[in-house]
Amino acid sequence: MILTVTANPAEDLTWHVDALRPGETHRVPAGVSRAGGKGLNVARVLAAEGHDVLALTTAGGAAGDRLVADLERSGIAHRTVTVAGETRRSLAFVDEASGETTIFNELGAPLEAAESAQFLAEATRLGRTASVVAVSGSLPPGLDPADLAALVAELVAAGTAVIVDTSGPALVAAARAGATVLKPNRDELAEVTGLTDPMSGARVLIEAGARLVVVSLGSDGLMVVAAAEVGGIRARLAEPLRGNATGAGDAAVAAIAAALAAAPTLATDPAEHGARVALARRATAWSASAVLMPLAGALSPEHASLESRVVVEIDGGPETPLSTSEPKATA
Amino acid sequence: MILTVTANPAEDLTWHVDALRPGETHRVPAGVSRAGGKGLNVARVLAAEGHDVLALTTAGGAAGDRLVADLERSGIAHRTVTVAGETRRSLAFVDEASGETTIFNELGAPLEAAESAQFLAEATRLGRTASVVAVSGSLPPGLDPADLAALVAELVAAGTAVIVDTSGPALVAAARAGATVLKPNRDELAEVTGLTDPMSGARVLIEAGARLVVVSLGSDGLMVVAAAEVGGIRARLAEPLRGNATGAGDAAVAAIAAALAAAPTLATDPAEHGARVALARRATAWSASAVLMPLAGALSPEHASLESRVVVEIDGGPETPLSTSEPKATA
Repeated sequence: MILTVTANPAEDLTWHVDALRPGETHRVPAGVSRAGGKGLNVARVLAAEGHDVLALTTAGGAAGDRLVADLERSGIAHRTVTVAGETRRSLAFVDEASGETTIFNELGAPLEAAESAQFLAEATRLGRTASVVAVSGSLPPGLDPADLAALVAELVAAGTAVIVDTSGPALVAAARAGATVLKPNRDELAEVTGLTDPMSGARVLIEAGARLVVVSLGSDGLMVVAAAEVGGIRARLAEPLRGNATGAGDAAVAAIAAALAAAPTLATDPAEHGARVALARRATAWSASAVLMPLAGALSPEHASLESRVVVEIDGGPETPLSTSEPKATA
Repeated sequence: MILTVTANPAEDLTWHVDALRPGETHRVPAGVSRAGGKGLNVARVLAAEGHDVLALTTAGGAAGDRLVADLERSGIAHRTVTVAGETRRSLAFVDEASGETTIFNELGAPLEAAESAQFLAEATRLGRTASVVAVSGSLPPGLDPADLAALVAELVAAGTAVIVDTSGPALVAAARAGATVLKPNRDELAEVTGLTDPMSGARVLIEAGARLVVVSLGSDGLMVVAAAEVGGIRARLAEPLRGNATGAGDAAVAAIAAALAAAPTLATDPAEHGARVALARRATAWSASAVLMPLAGALSPEHASLESRVVVEIDGGPETPLSTSEPKATA
């Protein structure tokens, strides 16, 4: 079983706007609400791909009720820690003219001490029965990087693979606690390491204690850096796709979790280089196929065929198209 | 008693953003929700100024429940027609850097035939006992311009003064039905008349049947055009104020309603020119003082002193400072 851990979920609200003009008034069709937050997007992708997944989340107030109702409607197995503070909202405005999405993420209400303790106890208890745990998103006030570090260390010691997708001090704490995989994006990595080169930044997190670092690079694909290799693995789609980038990183985390569930030593065994290349290709394809979907937490049906259009580059060497269905082959 | 009629209210949600950047992700403090819609803003201003006001509104779903709860908390007397469709949302993002507010208004769910009939019957019944009725905002699907025209004609025939603040075909229908006052803004007036000059546009609505037209001109103040006068009355603040323009037009409608409650023949009696000049000054001051407030439906405490800083111009003649407290007088 794969456990996703979402301490700071959100009610995701999406509106479609003809053209977003700052300072002006727009008339828009009613927005669509659904359960959101990065960890719930990961769970949604894994459930759709047929994986055994359980989503642990907090939920509070009327927005929390709507979130739980949506999880039930979606058929995603979930465990909820009810909290006093209202679940925050994440508001997305899709500009139909430019294709750009403008997002406003509320910060989230603080957790009370008893709520934090209960949530961490549930994450530990359920995580010990899981093969892979994916902890995603920001920590709400009341949950500290030290709490995350303790959870990561305990689960890793118990033999569970732990993926952490977060930012700031929590990202650093997860590295020091020996997280199996970290999944920062380029900006999050630069923010905590001060280094703009993703390979150098990933090395800093590996030296801090992480076993594998997957850096998502937007339309440039992603990079997989393992302690076992001197260089890294770069993967990108031959032709970048246009669409809604929300949830692309969550799709990559889902691909990482699925790969770890199938090959538990993927991150740590020097001999698993081939499995890491396969992971780079799949995570790139899932990420790109999430971009094609209007809402986060879904993959386009083409994700399998997209895998064959991923170009992989190893150790700074020449680009190596790994596919026989490259665009030029079909020309 | 002044009755405000709000067929298409909204749950007003407001967020404050450091700087709005289209296509980017922003972290924002939790938004603030309150009962909104133009007619409820008018009621809120009138109640705060000590007027006897009753707010008639539709309300539906969870957002409707929150809207009614907020009216109760605010101590605004109200009558609600419960409808099946969820009350729409109006989302405002205040850019702290530029001072601009970007607004997204949902369209509103359609009213069922029985709901429309019940709402119109309530508006007619309550309106006949009122001295002034202010009908504000768009009509939801299921309520037609012809319904609004019938309501206006019936109330005017019964001796009630009727102010209508709406746009498009509903604005034209209200003019033809003989509305006592229309309050379009410059764009709404240009849209229905095809004329960019507000004086010429106001004349078209007067010729169609309206008795008085007040055109709000944003930071340029407003214009009052009566059938009784050849020209019009222009009023503006000596120095425009910066702030949140949401609700400025509603504050002007509240000033018009208060003036009509005190002087019922204000719109129609040629001898009431002085009262119309006083109205122009007060509506300008209330509008400007709403701009100083973070949320719609409130006046800044300075609105009385702002009145003395309004410059009035009559019939295209020279500007006439009507105050002894002009900026130059205090220099």
